Amino acid sequence: MDEFALIRRYFAALTPAHPAVALGIGDDCALLTPPPGEQLAISSDTLIAGRHFPRDTAPADIGHKALAVNLSDLAAMGAQPLAFTLALTLPQADEAWLAAFAEGLGALARASGMALIGGDTTRGPLSISITVLGSVPPGRALRRDGAQPGDLVCVTGTLGDAALALQQLQVGQSPDPVLRARLDRPSPRNAAGLALRGLAHAGIDISDGLCGDLGHVLDASGLGAELQVGQLPMSDAFARSVMPAQRLRLQNGGDDYELCLCLPPAALAQARAACGALPLSVVGRVVAAPGLRMLDASGAPLPAPDSYQHF
Amino acid sequence: MDEFALIRRYFAALTPAHPAVALGIGDDCALLTPPPGEQLAISSDTLIAGRHFPRDTAPADIGHKALAVNLSDLAAMGAQPLAFTLALTLPQADEAWLAAFAEGLGALARASGMALIGGDTTRGPLSISITVLGSVPPGRALRRDGAQPGDLVCVTGTLGDAALALQQLQVGQSPDPVLRARLDRPSPRNAAGLALRGLAHAGIDISDGLCGDLGHVLDASGLGAELQVGQLPMSDAFARSVMPAQRLRLQNGGDDYELCLCLPPAALAQARAACGALPLSVVGRVVAAPGLRMLDASGAPLPAPDSYQHF
Repeated sequence: MDEFALIRRYFAALTPAHPAVALGIGDDCALLTPPPGEQLAISSDTLIAGRHFPRDTAPADIGHKALAVNLSDLAAMGAQPLAFTLALTLPQADEAWLAAFAEGLGALARASGMALIGGDTTRGPLSISITVLGSVPPGRALRRDGAQPGDLVCVTGTLGDAALALQQLQVGQSPDPVLRARLDRPSPRNAAGLALRGLAHAGIDISDGLCGDLGHVLDASGLGAELQVGQLPMSDAFARSVMPAQRLRLQNGGDDYELCLCLPPAALAQARAACGALPLSVVGRVVAAPGLRMLDASGAPLPAPDSYQHF
Repeated sequence: MDEFALIRRYFAALTPAHPAVALGIGDDCALLTPPPGEQLAISSDTLIAGRHFPRDTAPADIGHKALAVNLSDLAAMGAQPLAFTLALTLPQADEAWLAAFAEGLGALARASGMALIGGDTTRGPLSISITVLGSVPPGRALRRDGAQPGDLVCVTGTLGDAALALQQLQVGQSPDPVLRARLDRPSPRNAAGLALRGLAHAGIDISDGLCGDLGHVLDASGLGAELQVGQLPMSDAFARSVMPAQRLRLQNGGDDYELCLCLPPAALAQARAACGALPLSVVGRVVAAPGLRMLDASGAPLPAPDSYQHF
């Protein structure tokens, strides 16, 4: 099967017509009509087999996750998802693999209102590089540099599920299905990101671990924070399986795709209402003194765990 | 060196401030202010070591070529280059390699007026996936579906140089430096693409070989064409080195990054003037009957050579 037949069969009709897409897959470029008066939010993320997902991950889950981690970047900016390109590198054109991958990718794209507008397919070691485009009114994006002293540090959902599932896989255990689903099929928090525009001062998604990612917000804002590690939210499945000594490391293990937000205390109730059924937990407070301090339940300092290292 | 130090050192200041970029590298997404009233042209292309460039290619040339092949897609649409993201997968963070790669990439980006606005760096087998964004007034893009019967089929520059250099490398010969430069540092035809808006009915870039790429234009336009293979333009370096029996195959070998355009005969003189010093050669004519027919100097039909196969 040549590249063009592959694209026609699996990708050309993956997403329905979208009002912003003037020309979709099939030309040298796609043509997008940006929503008038809005800015475009753009991000690219690559997933490599064996590094960003276990090699035995189901192809539908790989398709889901590749788009989910990119959607998470739009969520962290409070941007409305619009469209994406897919650069797919495959060892061979395996039709069963492609059909399942496209199904997982397409289901999340359709659920998110995103159009697949183009990309590239090449032969090589399995990797998926996606670029997402979203829109946001000028001045309304959730940037990293807007935190203020006194802001509450909040996180959506629960932390550590994916890292625990991965650790269990690495030692040959079979993870709880709830944890495995959090590793393989993360739920990007786009509805929350949109709802928190105008409420949160700053936002980031937790892909590399809370400490490192919050550290980027603090660096960009020229501030520090105190984190109450006992307040880090955990799922029931995580609480049942985790060994206490590993809890903090795993809750900072990354691959969570939750949002970390800095918001004024007066906005907390409204922010929680905006998140609906998604829990929004207060885990710390922004302070003027630079640096991130981790405190246990007694207020005693703890050493910060390592963040995910890309190299 | 962690990912963030790597990005700060080699990529954060690679391109100067750009009026369309409201927020560049360093947040979850970049923010772009699209030129008012224009459409955005978007394309992604991936280069894999050993497949899209020889493994011994100089890193500065890899940086140049990775952006050039993407710029070529903007050229083929007649879109003004704006910005790009870079998803870079590297076996290790080799600082000398990175410095040279960034130099080659940055020089072409600056010469093209493009801003690097974000991306991703991951560890894995060397590959570079770039997404480019450009702008074009609505209705002015050079699409594939606009060819008309009677149009002249034209190509910019010369064909076959890169394919001949690659063939020579593959058999252990040292290519003529002019040919090797055409393989390693292709010149995307963005000025020509912009100048031909409103003159050409259809356009495509010649990345996979003229026959296959022109075939896409003809398929999209529901038409056919006759090509005079004796008219395919060749460089002096190509003419000196090529064996006559290989000429047609190499001139259809791809990796040229020239433009193929369909334009009305009355527009030829103006189109040539618009291309300035870049030659614009007439190589055939669009006809109503579907299919691509190759004709030799006597008008006798020739079999069509194969196009580049991605899989």
